[in-house]
Amino acid sequence: MAKKTSSDLDLGELELAAGNGLVDRRGFLNRAGSAAGILGTGLASLAVSPAQADPLKVQDWTKTPGLGFTAYGQPSQYENGVGRGPIVEPNAMYKTGPGSIRSPLQFLDGMITPNGLHFERSHNGIPDIKPDEHRLLIHGLVKRPQVFTLEALSRYPMTSRISFVECAGNSGSLYGKTAADGTAQTLHGLLSCAEWTGVSLALLLDEAGVDPKAKWLLAEGADAASMTRSIPLAKALDDAMIPLYQNGERLRPSNGYPMRLLVPGYQGNMNVKWLHRLKLTEGPTMTRDETSRYSLLLKEGKVAQFKFPLDAKAVITKPSPGLTMKGAGLYEISGLAWSGNGKIVRVDVSADGGKSFAPAVLSEPVLSKALTRFRLPWKWDGGPAVLQARAVDDTGYVQPTRDALVAARGNSPAYHNNAITNWAVAVDGGLKHVYA
Amino acid sequence: MAKKTSSDLDLGELELAAGNGLVDRRGFLNRAGSAAGILGTGLASLAVSPAQADPLKVQDWTKTPGLGFTAYGQPSQYENGVGRGPIVEPNAMYKTGPGSIRSPLQFLDGMITPNGLHFERSHNGIPDIKPDEHRLLIHGLVKRPQVFTLEALSRYPMTSRISFVECAGNSGSLYGKTAADGTAQTLHGLLSCAEWTGVSLALLLDEAGVDPKAKWLLAEGADAASMTRSIPLAKALDDAMIPLYQNGERLRPSNGYPMRLLVPGYQGNMNVKWLHRLKLTEGPTMTRDETSRYSLLLKEGKVAQFKFPLDAKAVITKPSPGLTMKGAGLYEISGLAWSGNGKIVRVDVSADGGKSFAPAVLSEPVLSKALTRFRLPWKWDGGPAVLQARAVDDTGYVQPTRDALVAARGNSPAYHNNAITNWAVAVDGGLKHVYA
Repeated sequence: MAKKTSSDLDLGELELAAGNGLVDRRGFLNRAGSAAGILGTGLASLAVSPAQADPLKVQDWTKTPGLGFTAYGQPSQYENGVGRGPIVEPNAMYKTGPGSIRSPLQFLDGMITPNGLHFERSHNGIPDIKPDEHRLLIHGLVKRPQVFTLEALSRYPMTSRISFVECAGNSGSLYGKTAADGTAQTLHGLLSCAEWTGVSLALLLDEAGVDPKAKWLLAEGADAASMTRSIPLAKALDDAMIPLYQNGERLRPSNGYPMRLLVPGYQGNMNVKWLHRLKLTEGPTMTRDETSRYSLLLKEGKVAQFKFPLDAKAVITKPSPGLTMKGAGLYEISGLAWSGNGKIVRVDVSADGGKSFAPAVLSEPVLSKALTRFRLPWKWDGGPAVLQARAVDDTGYVQPTRDALVAARGNSPAYHNNAITNWAVAVDGGLKHVYA
Repeated sequence: MAKKTSSDLDLGELELAAGNGLVDRRGFLNRAGSAAGILGTGLASLAVSPAQADPLKVQDWTKTPGLGFTAYGQPSQYENGVGRGPIVEPNAMYKTGPGSIRSPLQFLDGMITPNGLHFERSHNGIPDIKPDEHRLLIHGLVKRPQVFTLEALSRYPMTSRISFVECAGNSGSLYGKTAADGTAQTLHGLLSCAEWTGVSLALLLDEAGVDPKAKWLLAEGADAASMTRSIPLAKALDDAMIPLYQNGERLRPSNGYPMRLLVPGYQGNMNVKWLHRLKLTEGPTMTRDETSRYSLLLKEGKVAQFKFPLDAKAVITKPSPGLTMKGAGLYEISGLAWSGNGKIVRVDVSADGGKSFAPAVLSEPVLSKALTRFRLPWKWDGGPAVLQARAVDDTGYVQPTRDALVAARGNSPAYHNNAITNWAVAVDGGLKHVYA
């Protein structure tokens, strides 16, 4: 049998689920599971062009003993280009002071963000906190103020949860009147997900004994910005925690070492890093960080000040701008979906700019307030296409179009943009951010 | 009210669930959730001894802007001691050639192992594979041999799963006649867990079209040992995959970059790293790596050659040798449990050397063939104690005592030791591995 080329694909039998080549997820997976037929994607033929190596050739790396072990491992040298942006030089230190650095979503897969690539936002640099000298004070409207060392906290029963953190300003440029040039990283990369392990805040508040008058907490970081936010007591008693570990190891300095606050599903900067003080109060403290910033400007001079949970959103990471598609054939459309209000129950994907949608496969485990990876096979015909993903959560909330969001809020807000993103695919395989 | 000291604990009301101070998990958590009472662990008092800092003191790190951003982050300098062993110097490269390096389980928490601390076993060093020149060949008893580049594999629909990998030789020293001195890391650290993302092997076998005569696969690595194992076809079609990503980012070189095999729940070295060849065969190939090694020597000269799944096991990581307990009071007993045959359904913990047990809390999500974190509060009275954990999986299998395992297998096997471990707590707070 003659070898197939990438322009000679045998994908005719794939059952389609929506316009412009979206493949039915169940039919595809069942077929693959059978191991009886021949899938016929032709993808293997991409490997055997004459310029490419004989698969049985014994390569240099098989001929000589490899490298030894190191106590703490690092990524491959061939993955140097995968870093948090906007840093250009891989090992350079970017500016200190206020700023942010974004996860390279288009190069990642799965639901976990590795600690080295977790996004960062800091308001006056990353403090070099000596863990033995750090204290967490709980005071204000409590029966008995409490001071905790890291060692004391480490003796409490812990809890673990996989949770996303998203900056309230993530995707903010989608309020702009013209579609910003950008990638999944630069437009949506103030978003990461990790397994956090630490002490339930309810447990520590129980130690302090909450005064019935208390309804809020002031959470303060020990960084040079003294980043400070007000947290509703109800949230603190519900699912807030003080993580000491991130993806198994102690927090990184950039993510709050030695301890931070986690308020799952709420605006990123409420998850106060380098946490050293919680003061129980009757009302919100109205700090600089929740008045001059992180409030949602609406139309006609109105402000939604305490909108905390991040509404459901989905972003296609593959394919996406910066990645190039090489000819017609089978691809996977894959991305991340999340909701600050609960679990993702469905992600609808479109390849025709929203005219038709097919439901994606959600990778298990699907967890409340965690990133959920969605996937759908796509048979690209080589023509123009506009890719969209739309998240639905277990409250019944459906992610809005950008038109709907801007109609409701206007163009001036900077925060909580969860509009559907459009990636336009050109016939040369390049991708670009567009408004539908 | 006078401040409490650590020797003046108010834990009298905690409901006990088993001997020697094991606390009822439900009673403790309900109490904490109420935020009505005062938990009274006295742990906060550990922070306020005169030698320790004023919690309201403005520390140096709050007075000056902190450090800037880096493209790829690293752990805190204060966590330099947390590395894979037996390496002494944190940044030194350990010997090349065959060897292994173990995860520091006693310093980790949660279920995920960060990529930099994933255990490693290699048979002739870590190959420096150029990803663009690497090929995966599928041949032998197939209708159409297939050759895949990394780029071709990257276009297939992917799947993600959180799965442990454990070396068959992990915990092997527990077959010895006397209890080895060691830590959770040195005795049980050939064990890690990650979110793996890649292509279902069933999908690729479907592309190749499996000949009905094929019942096994030979999987070969491209390392300088050409590490080679035989895999049953049934396993390959069930849940095997070719991961390209580990915890979100591309595999690390030490864990198989650019691609490996994952056979969830099976002996570690069947998860062949640097995978470059799968040959479908009628029977097992009887390679060096499955005959001279990785077979289970039993009594009377018998050998269990193809015992692949790793049976259920639990290990207490906190407290454990190398960590020191500081005085009577509340502690958390925490550890990892897993089964190569399914999900963990229960972990029983004992503080009196197995005379009585209480069920631990299992941290969600509890996943098949993944590490499961278990936890139980413990009110240590300062006296001698022997800690044990015993895993039960959803097949009904109960982890055996060491006596039972040795009675069945003798002292000579090197592999598949899943006996219950005993950590003896001394009155000075030190811990030591003992046989019960």
